[in-house]
Amino acid sequence: MTDMKIIVITGAGSGFGKLAAIELGRAGHKVYASMRDLAGHSKDKVEEIRSIASSEGIDLHPLQLDVREEPSCRSAADFVLSVDGRIDVVINNAAMMMAGLTESFRPEQLAQILDLNAISWLRVNRAFLPAMRRQNKGLLLYVGSGITQIPDPFTGPYAASKAAGDVLAQIMGLENSRYNIETVICMPGAYTAGTDHFKHAVAAADPTVADQYGKLAGLAQELADKLDATNVPGTRTDAKEVAEKIAEVVDMPHGTRPFRFEVDPQQRQAMAVAEKANEMRRIFFDRLGVSDLMSVPEN
Amino acid sequence: MTDMKIIVITGAGSGFGKLAAIELGRAGHKVYASMRDLAGHSKDKVEEIRSIASSEGIDLHPLQLDVREEPSCRSAADFVLSVDGRIDVVINNAAMMMAGLTESFRPEQLAQILDLNAISWLRVNRAFLPAMRRQNKGLLLYVGSGITQIPDPFTGPYAASKAAGDVLAQIMGLENSRYNIETVICMPGAYTAGTDHFKHAVAAADPTVADQYGKLAGLAQELADKLDATNVPGTRTDAKEVAEKIAEVVDMPHGTRPFRFEVDPQQRQAMAVAEKANEMRRIFFDRLGVSDLMSVPEN
Repeated sequence: MTDMKIIVITGAGSGFGKLAAIELGRAGHKVYASMRDLAGHSKDKVEEIRSIASSEGIDLHPLQLDVREEPSCRSAADFVLSVDGRIDVVINNAAMMMAGLTESFRPEQLAQILDLNAISWLRVNRAFLPAMRRQNKGLLLYVGSGITQIPDPFTGPYAASKAAGDVLAQIMGLENSRYNIETVICMPGAYTAGTDHFKHAVAAADPTVADQYGKLAGLAQELADKLDATNVPGTRTDAKEVAEKIAEVVDMPHGTRPFRFEVDPQQRQAMAVAEKANEMRRIFFDRLGVSDLMSVPEN
Repeated sequence: MTDMKIIVITGAGSGFGKLAAIELGRAGHKVYASMRDLAGHSKDKVEEIRSIASSEGIDLHPLQLDVREEPSCRSAADFVLSVDGRIDVVINNAAMMMAGLTESFRPEQLAQILDLNAISWLRVNRAFLPAMRRQNKGLLLYVGSGITQIPDPFTGPYAASKAAGDVLAQIMGLENSRYNIETVICMPGAYTAGTDHFKHAVAAADPTVADQYGKLAGLAQELADKLDATNVPGTRTDAKEVAEKIAEVVDMPHGTRPFRFEVDPQQRQAMAVAEKANEMRRIFFDRLGVSDLMSVPEN
């Protein structure tokens, strides 16, 4: 297959990551489904990925990569380059969730989620970008969130971490576009089916703070309970939709991919905000003389 | 004076913080100009604040508060409450700057700036919000940045930290509006005069990464050099303008203050993006039934 791409996707043991890894494997790409600890924490997930790969005959491989540790990111990148001689696509996907009244989370918890959901994007990119620049080609795809554009109550640490990651992704994109490295930010909405995101949400360490809020603390639960009820009728509500869109975007010709796309059963319209930002950015960057950094050449 | 407010402003040893502290003192408020280490690192600044307070006869007091340490935030809050019995306004201002190619910063550097510029807002709020909720009144004012809406190249760690802080501020605002606690985010542009922000910018720990970027690394310096040249003719370019606007907003009647305002000699139009976000948020929150969280009652 001529357009077979070498792809690394982080946090591929579950959720969007796993679904996208399978989808991309089925599309004919060589996919490294990276997880943090193949022999330990991720053991069952590794078995599952291996069994899907062998039963479907797709080029899908577990890869050890702990996004919280720079040496682990570096080793994973070196491994891929030694085997395949190149890296075409990196999908920054690994993430954790926290839900609850912001003030009831300890600063250490906020630091933890910022590390996993945002600082990891710098760590992973530092490992793979030098090779992409030498190739003068690459695609950085990020699983961001619509919440970065329109933040909800009771999502403080999570939304802050995704916003930090989003801005990092934007800026690393600007800084690497002259090296023909394209950036795409996927903004999923809240999917309760097909991911462990909400099931594995970490609770606040100081619940007595939330208790000071009286009835408002109840509203958090109320909103969570009616999440599915606020889906727009007729929209798909399975996480697989996100994986399919990711695979579709990866297969678009280089230089024609959207800078962002939204897949959201609640249709919060994060794209409307992001498009306004892009419009104002172009005006400002034209004045600074740097609007050429906003895209890569089509090729 | 009937409308004298008790105000704490962090990072008040220099820049916007110092200027705003003086401005608010002159307006007749009791202002705690907080700094991280009165007897050590902040010693000269303490002397300066004391001398301004005594020569102008204004109610301006240095206060020890290291935004990086929760016990320090708590002790400062307890001190203010023990002396004044209430806290009217908290201005989250303390911040550090980093400038350069994003990839040349180590993950630990990104963690450091996220801690000082964003996690600190949670820390400081956790110390003061319980008292504000008991009072059923308060104002949280944040010195954010226009960069959160339209991020520039070569500002990765800084912009990411301000974006994380911005989203935290928004969400803590939603979560506290029913307690009559108003939130205002100030979005300054880049001021080269009147602040030490750029002079004290921390450099990347791995300059050999930036060296891989060839000519692009030069563009970072070029943009920094022409910062003042991109100011819109006729705009004020002194940081004191920001301090005056902050003082003006503090003195507006409770419930009528803007959720955001921009003061930017470059006029990047961050407000246009923020207003779009607010518009789309209102539509989405109406559907969720929570748009009442977006403001406090006028009183």
